[in-house]
Amino acid sequence: EDYWHLRTHVQIWDVGVQRQVEITGPDAAHLVQLMTPRDVRGAKIGKCLYVPLIDEKAGMLNDPVLIKLADDKFWLSIADSDVLLWAKGLAVGLRLDVEIEEPDVSPLAVQGPKAEALMRQLFGDDIAALGYFDYAMFDVLGTRQLIARSGYSKQGGFEIYLEGGHLGSALWDLIWQAGQAFNITPGCPNLIERVEGGLMSYGNEFTRANNPLECGFAPLCHLGDEVDYIGKDALRKIAEDGPQQMLRGIKFGGGRTPPCGKPFPVTNGDGLALGQITTGIYSPRLECNVGMSMIIKDHWDIGGVVVVHTPDGMAREGVISSLPF
Amino acid sequence: EDYWHLRTHVQIWDVGVQRQVEITGPDAAHLVQLMTPRDVRGAKIGKCLYVPLIDEKAGMLNDPVLIKLADDKFWLSIADSDVLLWAKGLAVGLRLDVEIEEPDVSPLAVQGPKAEALMRQLFGDDIAALGYFDYAMFDVLGTRQLIARSGYSKQGGFEIYLEGGHLGSALWDLIWQAGQAFNITPGCPNLIERVEGGLMSYGNEFTRANNPLECGFAPLCHLGDEVDYIGKDALRKIAEDGPQQMLRGIKFGGGRTPPCGKPFPVTNGDGLALGQITTGIYSPRLECNVGMSMIIKDHWDIGGVVVVHTPDGMAREGVISSLPF
Repeated sequence: EDYWHLRTHVQIWDVGVQRQVEITGPDAAHLVQLMTPRDVRGAKIGKCLYVPLIDEKAGMLNDPVLIKLADDKFWLSIADSDVLLWAKGLAVGLRLDVEIEEPDVSPLAVQGPKAEALMRQLFGDDIAALGYFDYAMFDVLGTRQLIARSGYSKQGGFEIYLEGGHLGSALWDLIWQAGQAFNITPGCPNLIERVEGGLMSYGNEFTRANNPLECGFAPLCHLGDEVDYIGKDALRKIAEDGPQQMLRGIKFGGGRTPPCGKPFPVTNGDGLALGQITTGIYSPRLECNVGMSMIIKDHWDIGGVVVVHTPDGMAREGVISSLPF
Repeated sequence: EDYWHLRTHVQIWDVGVQRQVEITGPDAAHLVQLMTPRDVRGAKIGKCLYVPLIDEKAGMLNDPVLIKLADDKFWLSIADSDVLLWAKGLAVGLRLDVEIEEPDVSPLAVQGPKAEALMRQLFGDDIAALGYFDYAMFDVLGTRQLIARSGYSKQGGFEIYLEGGHLGSALWDLIWQAGQAFNITPGCPNLIERVEGGLMSYGNEFTRANNPLECGFAPLCHLGDEVDYIGKDALRKIAEDGPQQMLRGIKFGGGRTPPCGKPFPVTNGDGLALGQITTGIYSPRLECNVGMSMIIKDHWDIGGVVVVHTPDGMAREGVISSLPF
């Protein structure tokens, strides 16, 4: 019900859990570049950038949204893990001239196909002009607030990076009231929609044990000489050798899958371990189960047939799919 | 009921949430010293050390137990926050020759006055010879495991740093069966006992906004020239100026306090804000409420009379107390 609603109308999500790691100071841009294999020299005020963060072994630390607020001020918008202490440790160790803090910013998401009409009514036509992953400042409750066209769904929408937690209830009420005409409901990231959209979650689809290439971040990884970052040597080595596994979608049958509390082993027909589904769920739109799994080399081709072992004891036939589904 | 049981018998606590940050390599001892204002040059294999961790501004990052396993191998045993990424950031920034990982170690606590008799029966007389915060290796389920006389209560007991999560259920069953003769029950850190014992909790009694001196860690802070660590300049400055607040116990009346979901403001009789109780609860033994609060300078003397404002609207008379109660 929530899935269809999100795909049809508009939802308001309290995503205040998305904290900002604020990096300011003369060395801020340098530190941000050190933390990601993505070339962020071209980062612009008014644009969000999706940036993998890696450690010195090219292990994934997070996949936040980078927001450049000024030449010497950045936010890394994270939903989990503790990027702040990583950034602080680097800054202290490298004696960088930066301040790293968590500001009082609590994002609120408005997601779904009717989000634009709702937000335009509240904040004016300029908001409709925002491209995907653009942001700008808008008048919100008598304050200036950052609003981006972004969010943890593929249904379109916006995130209001509300500065000032005391305004939270008032902002909720503002959107809630105006949203009545658009059939608004409260919601949160929808697991079915997330998997269908191939939206990964740190700690589920990937951890520090994974490198960005196998997560599908190769297009975001700069391996040339123009940009330096932590883990570059390790990442170049991985790229030379070629990744040993790759994140894939899996469609699988056998009726509604039980909840994916623990990963589901994925094998080939001969019982060879190929990977494990870290998030899997039944899709009412595709009328089959969908999941995400790293799949080992030589077996990750789209269309390949696999077996998914669910905790109810069933061996379910599956097919490797590209992401998003 | 749980409180009196913990004070009378023995309890088994799953404290697998206490993760180890394992630091190994030629620079391991150096990195550990950089992270704490405590002089850890004298750290010995077989001894646990309670170490405040601070950042470059002398803000508290955690208060783990340090376990020296070898000259080049240490565990920082933490229950919250992400010390691993802080340590990694420092190590990468300073180009230290260390490895930092989270090993498969899940502690199990056995706490209460009958813990020693129970543990002696299972693991031999040597365990009774362990002094407080000593550790040694013992035969457990056919493996060698680290057992320390420690735990997050003041009732005595042990923590088994079980290496190998697959052994968890077998270890639980072993202790549970032998514990029947000692009236064992399952438990967890008891809030009443914790507050009475003055056991602080990171994120409650102190955060990164607090320095170790106001947390009562002055005896553990080396301010001389023999040892260098991150935040030393900042900590010396704080010591010179003198701390501006100090952690105290507060006994307060007015009948059983409501739960301390949000901090309780503490004022003097004139309404001057003195601090806030971050953890407060009714003590059936002391027959009054007990809590912990930072109290500002010139008002923190033991015996001082304060007013505690609870969310039921009551203004309750309180008295400043030393810790533990």
